[in-house]
Amino acid sequence: MNLSGMEVEFQPLGKRETIPDGYSILDAARQSGIDLASACGGEGNCGQCRVILLSGKANAPDQDEVYYFTADQLRNGYRLACRAFPLENVKVQLPKGSLITGQRLQVESNLRSLPPDPRVQAYPVVLEPPSLEDPRSDLTRVLDELQERHGLNGMSAGLELIRTLSPSLRKADWKVSAFIREGEVISINALACRQVGLAVDLGTTKIAAMLVDLETGETLASAGVPNPQIAYGEDVISRLNYAYRHPDGSRFLAELVHQSVNDLLLDLVGQAGCQPGQVADACIVGNTAMIHLLLGLPTQQLATAPYVAAASQPIDLRPGEIGLGIAPGARVHIPPSIGGFVGADHVAMVLASDLDQASQVTLGLDIGTNTEISLRLPDQPYLTAISCASGPAFEGAHIQDGMRAASGAIEKANLNSAGWNWTTIDDEPPIGLCGSGILDVLAWLYRGGILTQNGRLQRDQPGVREGDHGFEFLLVPGRWSGSGRDIVITQHDVNEIQLAKGAIQAGINVLIESAGISPTLVQQVIVAGAFGSFLNIQNAVDIGLFPKLPNASFRQVGNASALGAKWILFSREARQRAVQIARNTRYLELTTYPKFNRRFAQAMLFPERPMD
Amino acid sequence: MNLSGMEVEFQPLGKRETIPDGYSILDAARQSGIDLASACGGEGNCGQCRVILLSGKANAPDQDEVYYFTADQLRNGYRLACRAFPLENVKVQLPKGSLITGQRLQVESNLRSLPPDPRVQAYPVVLEPPSLEDPRSDLTRVLDELQERHGLNGMSAGLELIRTLSPSLRKADWKVSAFIREGEVISINALACRQVGLAVDLGTTKIAAMLVDLETGETLASAGVPNPQIAYGEDVISRLNYAYRHPDGSRFLAELVHQSVNDLLLDLVGQAGCQPGQVADACIVGNTAMIHLLLGLPTQQLATAPYVAAASQPIDLRPGEIGLGIAPGARVHIPPSIGGFVGADHVAMVLASDLDQASQVTLGLDIGTNTEISLRLPDQPYLTAISCASGPAFEGAHIQDGMRAASGAIEKANLNSAGWNWTTIDDEPPIGLCGSGILDVLAWLYRGGILTQNGRLQRDQPGVREGDHGFEFLLVPGRWSGSGRDIVITQHDVNEIQLAKGAIQAGINVLIESAGISPTLVQQVIVAGAFGSFLNIQNAVDIGLFPKLPNASFRQVGNASALGAKWILFSREARQRAVQIARNTRYLELTTYPKFNRRFAQAMLFPERPMD
Repeated sequence: MNLSGMEVEFQPLGKRETIPDGYSILDAARQSGIDLASACGGEGNCGQCRVILLSGKANAPDQDEVYYFTADQLRNGYRLACRAFPLENVKVQLPKGSLITGQRLQVESNLRSLPPDPRVQAYPVVLEPPSLEDPRSDLTRVLDELQERHGLNGMSAGLELIRTLSPSLRKADWKVSAFIREGEVISINALACRQVGLAVDLGTTKIAAMLVDLETGETLASAGVPNPQIAYGEDVISRLNYAYRHPDGSRFLAELVHQSVNDLLLDLVGQAGCQPGQVADACIVGNTAMIHLLLGLPTQQLATAPYVAAASQPIDLRPGEIGLGIAPGARVHIPPSIGGFVGADHVAMVLASDLDQASQVTLGLDIGTNTEISLRLPDQPYLTAISCASGPAFEGAHIQDGMRAASGAIEKANLNSAGWNWTTIDDEPPIGLCGSGILDVLAWLYRGGILTQNGRLQRDQPGVREGDHGFEFLLVPGRWSGSGRDIVITQHDVNEIQLAKGAIQAGINVLIESAGISPTLVQQVIVAGAFGSFLNIQNAVDIGLFPKLPNASFRQVGNASALGAKWILFSREARQRAVQIARNTRYLELTTYPKFNRRFAQAMLFPERPMD
Repeated sequence: MNLSGMEVEFQPLGKRETIPDGYSILDAARQSGIDLASACGGEGNCGQCRVILLSGKANAPDQDEVYYFTADQLRNGYRLACRAFPLENVKVQLPKGSLITGQRLQVESNLRSLPPDPRVQAYPVVLEPPSLEDPRSDLTRVLDELQERHGLNGMSAGLELIRTLSPSLRKADWKVSAFIREGEVISINALACRQVGLAVDLGTTKIAAMLVDLETGETLASAGVPNPQIAYGEDVISRLNYAYRHPDGSRFLAELVHQSVNDLLLDLVGQAGCQPGQVADACIVGNTAMIHLLLGLPTQQLATAPYVAAASQPIDLRPGEIGLGIAPGARVHIPPSIGGFVGADHVAMVLASDLDQASQVTLGLDIGTNTEISLRLPDQPYLTAISCASGPAFEGAHIQDGMRAASGAIEKANLNSAGWNWTTIDDEPPIGLCGSGILDVLAWLYRGGILTQNGRLQRDQPGVREGDHGFEFLLVPGRWSGSGRDIVITQHDVNEIQLAKGAIQAGINVLIESAGISPTLVQQVIVAGAFGSFLNIQNAVDIGLFPKLPNASFRQVGNASALGAKWILFSREARQRAVQIARNTRYLELTTYPKFNRRFAQAMLFPERPMD
């Protein structure tokens, strides 16, 4: 416990704020620059500043809160932030509606496009209604027409379609469009409506989704939300543990995500002006843990050594199994994974970046709490993949003034003769640093000699001062910040970044070494994902996160996993290629590599200074 | 309302009893000879005589009942029969545990046997546990072993199996038996255990089930229960109406049957000493309405003209969809149906009786509330099928002293010079008549001249007396009956039987006539089902229920539908033949046949007396 006050942790932003005794959660939000809705200004009169108390104690709800919440909500920890005064360190969830500005979500990529080759086709079906003379079953009537008019023989239908068929035909007055996937009627829609698909990138932190026209490949709408499981564990291992240690924990976490994905679906079809029944195909990618939690698969064997997935094969599930209200006979495709820590999202990233077909020696990275890296050697049929436990520092977690990439986060920074420059997301006054900002600051601190090669803040350098927990560097004085408080980089922050970049650097080194090639032979580095897209390559090279290669060797490709999911959604050939990628990728377990720990320790140092 | 007292209707027996004011439901049960459990003799002390009040009013529950039941049970109408005093006509359900003797259930048939040819095979799989050096997913480990040891390539598994795989393998210490159906791993069991299957005949009145060894075809256990939907409609149309007119009615009726089928499963695996996970395949036959209600299909279009099924195709459903706890990847097969009133049960009956391959002109009948009849002409590729609305009289319903084939029912009767002889089920004192008994009595009344050809009871004949509602024939005086009351055949009963037999007779006539053959060309009549197996052929011919053919032309084959379900369960060839039968059977709608109503009216008369 912090003796100087109580700490309030805001999820899903990952922002922490310390407040004195007697301050409300709304005070904490304001102090840290979080835009919590509050029309009445904190008088308990508007009911807008809703938060959910996840852990820690606060005062009992007062009469304003009893007015605004149901008994059920109160039992579940709902509070008005202006009426809730922490009595100890607390963790609160910010419901979507309470946040004025959200977290930055990236669903697009700058990679090549692919011609669509969808699994689902639409056929017009116009029928005579049944009579006593012609009492064929409704399905028979549809199948006979498909045969007679379109020459489609041997079509079938599953129970999900049959359950909705009779009212659908009658409501549409026997004039419909039948969607067919590989010999199966999967949906009955209004005549002449187009088939669309849903692609989802299910991240540990964020869920991004796109609605795609299956015939043109065009993205009709996209949207994203934070992963609501964050409140039950920031990293995958905590969440897996939660799932198997709590009664019904697995189902609970699964249903949280099901709800979010379904909400995204409804948002997207609303944006695009479609009916949910038109969504004829779906693809969800995610890391292996997220997919296990989505599907309610057993998690204990994945959370403990040797970290074994229940299955790494592609899975086609019925939408009802994840509560997804799309075409009744649609299937939700989960592409294959490579191992317990290299999931379908990495397969999708390899696919969309064409890493498996690269004609140069190429590294492909997706940086996150776990960083997956694959190495392609053009003369070998196999990719080799590793997973580095890089931790959440690059997502702003475990960093004093760190936060996720949301409004007010410093995302870029540099030091020149005039001092520090920074830019924030949405150009809001700075309230913290997201991953790319932290990286920039560290690189410039190192270049400026404020940090030593082994990562120590130099006490006698300008800006360095004694903080509550050792030395810290003052980046933004309180008078310029959105919270009125100083934004600093602590010695502990530097060490967290060293651990993260050391894990990735050591992983890359081992991956190259195990392939028996020299590091200088690497010709191309594909950097995917949100952090990877926004980071400054030169800075990443200079602190040793990336190997020392010309800037032109790096390709920052955006959310390649989401693009891969989209390809797998609308292209049968891409779906097949994903299976080949998973099959032809060898997983290398770093912890079994000789002397890995020593390599990791060495990689935590910063490289020789470029100017040295 | 009966002015002479209150009527108590007991389900699932279908027995009605009238009691004076101040009598309890237990009194009514005793009076009608129903063996309701009651250790304390009606003192409210044993809690055994449980019934569920379905409709009508009775006194409020007393303290004994508050003691024996939960608040939930009381809300749902649970009563002790000895403490419940009807205030008006009531309908009560007898829970299985409250009945000392059950209803007769027939699951066997006397037809030929078929060599098994099951879809599921078992393979031993013995694995090395995973390690950091070999962290393949659990499913990959199983599939690799199937490939390496058994040469099985390209095997897959569905989500249901994957959800249970990891704990199953670890619990069995990596030594298991993998059940495989057509390239898919569907269940992981203890090494060297056999594959079994579940065959269910889902009747409107009864549910019969068998557990079958899939390799030998042997029936390991069989059991039956009344269909619990009876309380929501005796006939299929009332039940279909209930399903679509009540909010959630469809799901409610479906879940009632799911529960019964799952209870039967647990009973059977207990009897056979198996694990539910060994049940690797299942087949459920039933009439079209029962299958719609089982699967939660829409019912409105089936309950109203032109009576169209949602689908008549075979359906393979996942066990979870009907709450059936068998092998996770198993499929429950529903064979195809022929029309809205000729269902999968009739297809199964045609299959097991080889009607589709008969070398003689053959009629196949399954008599019930709806009677399905098919005609086979050896020189034609098509069967023709009809459905007659024969009503529930042959099941004892709508008959004053009628009841289902349960303990104490008169099942056979004849009249000789010494007077009436009868035999009852379980040799209990008679409490009513079941279908075969009613048929016998009518045939002998007609032979004896007590009934006229148009079905009138002759007032001057011995035994005929004036009853509350017209003339009635006294069959069993109260001093000999199990209830102490007279058992009679009323004029109304005779008319009900005339309607039933007339519908069937007219159906047979139209079926033969529409085929363009003379009735005398029919060489064989296959009579399936419980009533059909127990009835006296000569009596059925003499009242005109069956055509006038030599006794040797008739084959009473028992529960051929259940046998057909068993064949479809364990034989791929039989499953295929069922599809052919459904495809090659033309449905003839009787109501569209010229002058059908006149034929029906004529068929209600009794034929010329054999002795005339």
